[in-house]
This record gives sequence, C-alpha cells and structure tokens, in this order.
Amino acid sequence: MKAICLLSGGLDSTVTLAYALCKGHEVTALTIDYGQRHQRELEAAKAVTSHYRVRHVVMKLPLTEFRSSLIDPSIPLPDRKVEDIGYDIPDTYVPARNIIFLSVATGLAESLGASNVFIGANSIDYSGYPDCRPEFFQAFEEMLRVGTKMGTLGHPIRVEHPLLRKTKGDIVKMGKIMDVPFELTWSCYRGGERACGHCDSCLLRLKGFKEAGLIDPVPYEE
Amino acid sequence: MKAICLLSGGLDSTVTLAYALCKGHEVTALTIDYGQRHQRELEAAKAVTSHYRVRHVVMKLPLTEFRSSLIDPSIPLPDRKVEDIGYDIPDTYVPARNIIFLSVATGLAESLGASNVFIGANSIDYSGYPDCRPEFFQAFEEMLRVGTKMGTLGHPIRVEHPLLRKTKGDIVKMGKIMDVPFELTWSCYRGGERACGHCDSCLLRLKGFKEAGLIDPVPYEE
Repeated sequence: MKAICLLSGGLDSTVTLAYALCKGHEVTALTIDYGQRHQRELEAAKAVTSHYRVRHVVMKLPLTEFRSSLIDPSIPLPDRKVEDIGYDIPDTYVPARNIIFLSVATGLAESLGASNVFIGANSIDYSGYPDCRPEFFQAFEEMLRVGTKMGTLGHPIRVEHPLLRKTKGDIVKMGKIMDVPFELTWSCYRGGERACGHCDSCLLRLKGFKEAGLIDPVPYEE
Repeated sequence: MKAICLLSGGLDSTVTLAYALCKGHEVTALTIDYGQRHQRELEAAKAVTSHYRVRHVVMKLPLTEFRSSLIDPSIPLPDRKVEDIGYDIPDTYVPARNIIFLSVATGLAESLGASNVFIGANSIDYSGYPDCRPEFFQAFEEMLRVGTKMGTLGHPIRVEHPLLRKTKGDIVKMGKIMDVPFELTWSCYRGGERACGHCDSCLLRLKGFKEAGLIDPVPYEE
C-alpha cells in the first residue's frame, strides 16, 4: 500500500520512515522547506531518502511572516534545562506547522492514491507544541473524514503517528532495532557544522540516546 | 480586530473581503499561488487588494504532483450544464485545497495576532468539493481548538464563511450592495483573455448575475 511519510531529516521522522517501510508500505517521503533556519535538516532528509532509496518530494513553502524562532533569526532560540521542556509553548512553535504539513501530505496522498500519512510526532519527550498531542490527531482525522474526497467516499486518509506515546529513549531503541542510520539525521535547531547540544531539540535527542544506552554518532560542539 | 481573508481574486472571495472590511476588521488578504492554470486570478487578487488598499500577502506553494485539472493542463476541464454541477466531485477538485489554505491562514493569523480567518466558501451553488461544506468547517474549527496555541489558550482562531449558505444570486446582490468592483475579479478556470463562459466557475458566476438581475462586467468569449 502506498503511503506518504513526512520527513524533516531529524531523528523522529527518520525512525518513522523506517517503521513505515517495515510495515511494507511503498513510501513517498515528503519534506517541506518552510524557510527553517536549520536548513541543514533538508540535507539530512536528502541523505536519508538516498539511503533508503525512496521517492523524495521536496516542497518549498516559505512561511512568510510567520512568527517563530525557527524561522526568524532575530528571535533567539531558548537555552534551558531538559527537565523544563514540555510545560509551555516555546518560541520555537511554528504556528499551525503540523496542521499545514499534514494538510499538504493529505492532498499529496489523495493525488497519488496513498492511503496513509505517517508523521513522527511525539507527545512525551516533546517541546509542548499543541499539534503533537493525541487529541489533535483525533480531531484532524475527523476533519479529513468530512473534508476530503476519500473521506466522503468512506476511505479517509489515515494519519499514522507510531511514536506518539513513546519516550525518546524508546524511539532511539526502536531506531536501533530497525538499523536506522542515526549518523545521517540532524536534529539541532541551530544547524551549524556540529550540533549545539543545548537547544531543546539537542537536549531531547541526547536524553534519548542516554536512556537507550547508546552514543549519538552525530558530532557535537565541545 | 485583525483578520486574515483568503483571496483568490474571484467573485466569492472578493465579496468576502468586502464583508470582512464592512465588519470593521483590519484585514490582511492572503493569496496562495499553488500553480493554478488560471494564473490570471492572481492578477485579479492584486487589483482587488489595490482597490481596497489592504495588505496583501502572496505565498507561493506549488502543489507538486497534486492531481487536479486546475493544476495539470493535460487533464481537460469539464464542460457541462449548470444544472449538473454539484452532484459529484469533479476533476477540478484540488485535493485538500481548502484544508491547506485554511491551515496556512491560521498560522499567519496566529503569527500576526489576528482572531479571524475569512473564506468565501459556498455550499449551495458550488462544484461539490467536500471542503466547502458546513460539516467540514465545524470539524476544522474543532481541530483548531485542540491543535493550536491560541486554541489551547482558550481563544481559537474563528473561521468565518459568510457566503456558506447563500445562492450565487444572493452573493452577487450582496456584492452589489457593498459596491464590490466586480470588473476586477476573475472566476474563469481557463484564464484566457476573456472568460470562457462554459467552465463550472463561469457557469455558476453567470447564473449568479442572472439571478441578481445584473450584467457581469467581465468580458466573455463570443
């Protein structure tokens, strides 16, 4: 069965892609270049799709005038402790990002005759974004049921979020079992030569590798 | 209060923009260039925003690989009778288009501190698209309630669809009362020098002017 997998090039979306492949899907990976400051993750997405030899669609959607520290370099990225992450919605929140990404993925799925859309969202070790929570996905699927052609025909696109309730440690372990090329992935919001090690995304990734008892192969700043 | 108004440059979205202004909103018009074959509607949108002197954000989002006769010129546009429109979902359906447009508009609204998103959707004299129906908008708003920052704070973005239950004739009459510059708008899917007069969009527009007892100022092919 055909499926679309949203792929940022980070740890979670790459593990999700591997999972979709494990399930036997014919996967088209979809990367959206929304003008993120860490453009390096686009290169990572490309490397991951080359590794897996899956079709890769890259769509450019510059989110002009969207307010987020992931887009606007004049807004500083937060530096905080890992235990403080997840209790509020930080400046890295890109308004409606997952809603937009899933909408585009749904349209592509309907166009290509795919039945499933995979997304690596996580609601346990995450940054507190509202569009990563189970109740959001439930409401989104209901909306697809009434708002799309496939939905009105009784076959709405299914949104699959296999990592939703997993800890970051479990995600790393899952990736290890599936032999995910962690070294090709990129999570750091700063997008420098080496990962910064202290943005929210690095902190959560490092926590995951530590919990899994593994060493992250990606180079970090001293 | 700030509001975003989705503006294609056609009749319905222009009447909706006039209505949002009438209600006293400070409006930012949002046009999405998704690679539609009737690029002429983008010029119309520009003319309309100049007329009203409202801020105009144009976002480019080429819907690569989306299957629709509005995007892919190799798929012929339907030519049919006006009374046959609305009973099935035609090839002009762009998968998830309103879902994508509303998602982007929501993100822009959250970014600019706008509380409302206006859309000129209509479920009476329409082409049968599932994302134009009342049940879709209800589900979409519920999804915004749980999936956005403003929603979790108890102030979800409101989606306003003032034309949803009006006939095309009523829309034209409403536009006439508000002195809408009909001559600047563009509805024809073919996007030639003159409107073709026989695509779904022309048929519905002509029906509206006829019902309202008015002459459409836009030039039509002989």
